Amino acid sequence: MKKLHILSLATAVTLLSTGCGDDKRPSDKAPTDPLATKAIESGLKAIPNNSADIHKITNNPANPVTAEKVELGKKLFFDPRLSKSNLISCNTCHNLALGGDDDVSAAMGHKWTANPHHLNSPTVYNAVFADRQFWDGRDPDLEKQAQGPILAGPEMASTKEIVIDTIKTIPAYLAEFKKVFGTEEVTYEKATAAIGAFERTLVTPSRFDDFLNGDATALSAEERAGLETFIDKGCTSCHSGYALGGSMQPFPVVKPYKYANVGDFKGDANGMVKVPTLRNIGETAPYFHNGATWDLAEAVKIMGETQLGLTLKDDEVSKIVAFLGSLEGRKPKVEYPVLPAGTSTTPKPDMN
Amino acid sequence: MKKLHILSLATAVTLLSTGCGDDKRPSDKAPTDPLATKAIESGLKAIPNNSADIHKITNNPANPVTAEKVELGKKLFFDPRLSKSNLISCNTCHNLALGGDDDVSAAMGHKWTANPHHLNSPTVYNAVFADRQFWDGRDPDLEKQAQGPILAGPEMASTKEIVIDTIKTIPAYLAEFKKVFGTEEVTYEKATAAIGAFERTLVTPSRFDDFLNGDATALSAEERAGLETFIDKGCTSCHSGYALGGSMQPFPVVKPYKYANVGDFKGDANGMVKVPTLRNIGETAPYFHNGATWDLAEAVKIMGETQLGLTLKDDEVSKIVAFLGSLEGRKPKVEYPVLPAGTSTTPKPDMN
Repeated sequence: MKKLHILSLATAVTLLSTGCGDDKRPSDKAPTDPLATKAIESGLKAIPNNSADIHKITNNPANPVTAEKVELGKKLFFDPRLSKSNLISCNTCHNLALGGDDDVSAAMGHKWTANPHHLNSPTVYNAVFADRQFWDGRDPDLEKQAQGPILAGPEMASTKEIVIDTIKTIPAYLAEFKKVFGTEEVTYEKATAAIGAFERTLVTPSRFDDFLNGDATALSAEERAGLETFIDKGCTSCHSGYALGGSMQPFPVVKPYKYANVGDFKGDANGMVKVPTLRNIGETAPYFHNGATWDLAEAVKIMGETQLGLTLKDDEVSKIVAFLGSLEGRKPKVEYPVLPAGTSTTPKPDMN
Repeated sequence: MKKLHILSLATAVTLLSTGCGDDKRPSDKAPTDPLATKAIESGLKAIPNNSADIHKITNNPANPVTAEKVELGKKLFFDPRLSKSNLISCNTCHNLALGGDDDVSAAMGHKWTANPHHLNSPTVYNAVFADRQFWDGRDPDLEKQAQGPILAGPEMASTKEIVIDTIKTIPAYLAEFKKVFGTEEVTYEKATAAIGAFERTLVTPSRFDDFLNGDATALSAEERAGLETFIDKGCTSCHSGYALGGSMQPFPVVKPYKYANVGDFKGDANGMVKVPTLRNIGETAPYFHNGATWDLAEAVKIMGETQLGLTLKDDEVSKIVAFLGSLEGRKPKVEYPVLPAGTSTTPKPDMN
């Protein structure tokens, strides 16, 4: 039985930040289904049903997730005026309407510039669960990650000054900033911390979680078979944890990657690549770090070969793809913000 | 006293489409304030307080505004997959977060191409009240207008086929389309009609309307003085009706336009230009058809000279600008959509 209870973001955040909420979804139970137990033993983790418990695994003590900070972060996330051109926001590449990414192969930014390494935008949904951020894992968390693309030439092409001055010259922004941080001293790091706090709320529990949380009926027979195949074939050796991904792993392991010719990304200094989350995977095509295929079944096959040295049969692939469908999550409701108007001193766009 | 009662879009539309709603805002009364009477006599019109009455002046009998159609239209409005690149949606240039436009001088589209005539994107809020659409007034209504930018090379650069095939290849879209139009025969004109229906709900009543609707306390003393100046100087000869604009008028009338050198737009075949709405004007800089100035006071001064042959004094300009602030409207709440995922046959992006 599908659960469709979705909290509004504001409500959820209030609950998260106070830690005393109850969203009326059933309490988590220890799974009685042997397959659920097997999944957990293989390293898969369920997002909890309870808002307070979600808050525990998504909060950052160094940047506490509060309702006010999330609201400010949401505004900044959607505000294209943080970019040099006034045209590109965080949401451009991490579009919450499109599974949290952009449905293009390589990220496109300022002046219609594709990512120079042909890197694909990862989804922002559930990114909080990743051990590291960016495909090469160079940043430890969302707060730090948010500092990168805003300044990157082929992305938002902005400067710290543009971000700071945009907030400082818009009285409503400045007031909100002061309320959140208790100071009018606007810094780039605080602004991106607010964005990070918002992103920490972008968590999407799914029927898979319901299954692990004790609802044995949450998965269909084919999805169950797919989950079992997924575990038995060893997919969970990389795709584990809350994100079913998010750790740094070697790539390729066994055989050369079929689409290695697309772009020039080779991972970090040790050839390690961040494992993408499989949550909402049906909404985040094209696949791989270089967005080389739109075909999820092909992607599963390639991963079997490249990483596990296995030739998966068509029916095994079908089952795994069916299981992956159960990772389509319930998205937090996000009210589209009405951003405060600029003033005469607010930085003006520069298209060049 | 500011009124802050805002309907959620879904509720508002339900009310609008059934025509039986009551949003608990006070009923409109005949104005008792002589200035309100004078404003109405000068041709200014108040957006009603009552949802059913708003529906009467925003509905299109040829394309009835229903809750289901508005929801489909909202999804399409926000869906960048309707563009050739998958990167540009209606909301890119008519951003509901930024007063309904894009905060850049000339609209930017596919391949970072500026509008070839250096035309500024008009706000979509209250566009329903305009007599004609586009700066040259070439289209009669929002349904027809929506057909233009999607196909225009420097904007979304799409084709009718991309739009039709995107809807047809996404089962959830097709089901929604069928529910709205009673047919699976997807046409470009029906898709854009849904977008138009959504846009018809983007109406923003403000304190100015409250004043005309009988709340004599809704405007400050300076705003009242500004309204009186606005009328007495003759601004209402063009900026009238619900939109305080939206009709076709000659431009320039008395003196040459100061920024005529920016772009090459000269109006329609008769030199007529659509008068922009003044609602939310504080949020829709830069100003004029060619986005030539970010300074609202300067824009007011230029209009006085160019259109009325008047040299407005600084204090007159200040008062008018204060009055214009009362046109900052209460925006409908828009829940950011979660768009249905594409399939293997959904058109893929083309950046070229």
